[in-house]
Amino acid sequence: MPAPELSPPQSSLPAAASRSGAYVLAEAAARARDIKGATGARPLAPPLPAPPPVDIPAVEVRTPSVDLERILRGPSGLGTASLRLARREERPTPPAPAEGNPIPGLYYHPVPEPDPVRVEEVSRRIKAWAGDEVDLYPEDWEDQFDGFSVGRYMVACHPDAPTVDHLMLATRLMVAENAVDDCYCEDHGGSPIGLGERLLLAHTALDPLYTTEEYQPRWAESLHSDAPRRAYRSAMEYFLQEASPSQADRFRHDMARLHMGYLAEAAWAQTDQVPEVWEYLAMRQFNNFRPCPTITDTVGGYELPADLHAQPAMQRVIALAGNATTIVNDLYSYTKELAAPGRHLNLPVVIAEREGLSDRDAYLKAVEVHNDLMHDFEAEAAAVADACPVPSVQRFLRGVAVWVDGNHYWHQTNTFRYSLPDFW
Amino acid sequence: MPAPELSPPQSSLPAAASRSGAYVLAEAAARARDIKGATGARPLAPPLPAPPPVDIPAVEVRTPSVDLERILRGPSGLGTASLRLARREERPTPPAPAEGNPIPGLYYHPVPEPDPVRVEEVSRRIKAWAGDEVDLYPEDWEDQFDGFSVGRYMVACHPDAPTVDHLMLATRLMVAENAVDDCYCEDHGGSPIGLGERLLLAHTALDPLYTTEEYQPRWAESLHSDAPRRAYRSAMEYFLQEASPSQADRFRHDMARLHMGYLAEAAWAQTDQVPEVWEYLAMRQFNNFRPCPTITDTVGGYELPADLHAQPAMQRVIALAGNATTIVNDLYSYTKELAAPGRHLNLPVVIAEREGLSDRDAYLKAVEVHNDLMHDFEAEAAAVADACPVPSVQRFLRGVAVWVDGNHYWHQTNTFRYSLPDFW
Repeated sequence: MPAPELSPPQSSLPAAASRSGAYVLAEAAARARDIKGATGARPLAPPLPAPPPVDIPAVEVRTPSVDLERILRGPSGLGTASLRLARREERPTPPAPAEGNPIPGLYYHPVPEPDPVRVEEVSRRIKAWAGDEVDLYPEDWEDQFDGFSVGRYMVACHPDAPTVDHLMLATRLMVAENAVDDCYCEDHGGSPIGLGERLLLAHTALDPLYTTEEYQPRWAESLHSDAPRRAYRSAMEYFLQEASPSQADRFRHDMARLHMGYLAEAAWAQTDQVPEVWEYLAMRQFNNFRPCPTITDTVGGYELPADLHAQPAMQRVIALAGNATTIVNDLYSYTKELAAPGRHLNLPVVIAEREGLSDRDAYLKAVEVHNDLMHDFEAEAAAVADACPVPSVQRFLRGVAVWVDGNHYWHQTNTFRYSLPDFW
Repeated sequence: MPAPELSPPQSSLPAAASRSGAYVLAEAAARARDIKGATGARPLAPPLPAPPPVDIPAVEVRTPSVDLERILRGPSGLGTASLRLARREERPTPPAPAEGNPIPGLYYHPVPEPDPVRVEEVSRRIKAWAGDEVDLYPEDWEDQFDGFSVGRYMVACHPDAPTVDHLMLATRLMVAENAVDDCYCEDHGGSPIGLGERLLLAHTALDPLYTTEEYQPRWAESLHSDAPRRAYRSAMEYFLQEASPSQADRFRHDMARLHMGYLAEAAWAQTDQVPEVWEYLAMRQFNNFRPCPTITDTVGGYELPADLHAQPAMQRVIALAGNATTIVNDLYSYTKELAAPGRHLNLPVVIAEREGLSDRDAYLKAVEVHNDLMHDFEAEAAAVADACPVPSVQRFLRGVAVWVDGNHYWHQTNTFRYSLPDFW
């Protein structure tokens, strides 16, 4: 992919690598002080073993080496094989095999079945949270909540989470994000009319209002006034117990992007307009899974330093990963969206309309777009891993790649929600 | 102001202070490497004198000491008095006195007249940029562009900018932000219909799209297709030459907030709805000047480290400063907005409508809301300055405070745009 027009003057990767050591030291020093000080509220990163030293050869940007691919997404997540084995001894029933077929021709990586003990525990806890803590949905939505299989989803995407508590951070946020999308934008009473107001007021549950004593309490009360806001508020409160301020800032930024994406999509829905393909892809870079893989370090109990996260090369990797995972959603939800009332934009629909292709050819072209994004993601991630051999960077890149694979796994196996079109 | 509900678990200020020293060291080490390395594209911070060591007494949160007030906004910006004197020798004509009256009862701080040599040079260069580089406006908008007096505005807000080149970073972005607001949202053809699409596509000039080889060029071309996008693209390109990746990320985040704020306001315009006062204040925390004061360090040629910027206490200071400056805009533009077609929401209008007050009483109450926000900003900034005696933190806080004062100065003196109501 050509370098984007805006970023050439920024620091290059070797500079990032040379800075990172100092930052790691600074962080370690600060954490050491945190342990002693009464004010250090953040727990230490859990004592996971550091990733083994690996020999990462110099690679061509578009050709990740076999070694690096293995590092980025070996069949087992870091440290999870032993966890899983230990738990399987306690509970010897083998996991149910994954159902559903992958899309023919789709470039993806299979993942091991997610640890069934963790899946069960996360599923139990998330249902209790949704019911008891945030009163998320009326009883007749329970089937749909169960069919979402969010426990299996999050365990598959975060195999290196040190504890179930860490998995719950991701799981609550994922459920809250879906509640906002469903209730404000889509299936359950959503509408493009007034969406800008609803999303902004919900966003203040993540990025708080600071105002005068007279008006502050009314805002605080508003966060309890509907299910999406209750879910955002509570999920964020838990997240802030583990995330550093910079990790929280990163998450807020990604959520602002998501909400902007919803609003662009709503603008097209309101005017019944089909955008050009590149415009759709631009919207989809914002209305995107990005807030999910980018918390992989918080869920993993470590931190990618803010200055390394902000590097243009890392931003490119994150954007490409998010775009690939999001087109996976377009492809697997294609028949579901066709069956829903109204026209629902997704990449095959937009390609068919704007490029005059048959539904089948447009779908197959969308598969190719996805595959190109995946290859670009892997090539760029390999280049970053090569240029910046810092443990938090290596682990973050691996975490994002595992998230991408877990996301595909969930879409493939979620036959309650998704089925494939008959194009082959 | 009560602590916002979401932030108690985050790190406290003393922890921030203890970390900062290590970060400053890390940054210095990284910059030292940048000088030697061929890849270090960022120039060093210009050799401004460090702020003198000051004795900052412990202060009550709501009662900043006189000393600290002086530090936060003395009558002369850091290092600018000597600059100004030197330039005045070259050009002995005294600056024109500020026109316009301040709002009676408004809590504000006067600023010295901005350096007329700088004002003239910035005004000349920004007009050349708008005309020759980004083809910003048709000829008959020239009066309006001149009446905006953006050179005087930015010189007043950034007295510590080491060079006119630094001032131009802020000036281009300010003009671009106004072009987007005018052309997409307000006076010059703006509309709530389709706004979500327009803002998102313009946002990609700040936060680039990463997509496939087939579609990437069409996106790159789109950035030249209208004045707002040309302005964003070019202003950001210049900004990236000076900003660190973390400073660029901070700016993108603040611009995403701004665009969300526009979209919430547009939602109310479309449904002709007057929000509750707290809802309006929440929207106005996003549709806000925030992206302008938060680049004060880039414009000043230094960097507030990302981890200190993200601290909850610093986020609160920034939000309060942004909210105070934004209500200043509501108050000074009140008669202009009343005279414009349609109902334009601003704080006095919303208070009058929702609280059943007369126009005059609602306006005076809005002045009190502003004053409370200003006092809270100063108290919280004093607390941060006290808890975190790190040069970049002290200078950033002073830079934000000076921006707040310069913003008031510009509103007060811009009689081309603004006049006061007859309420006293």
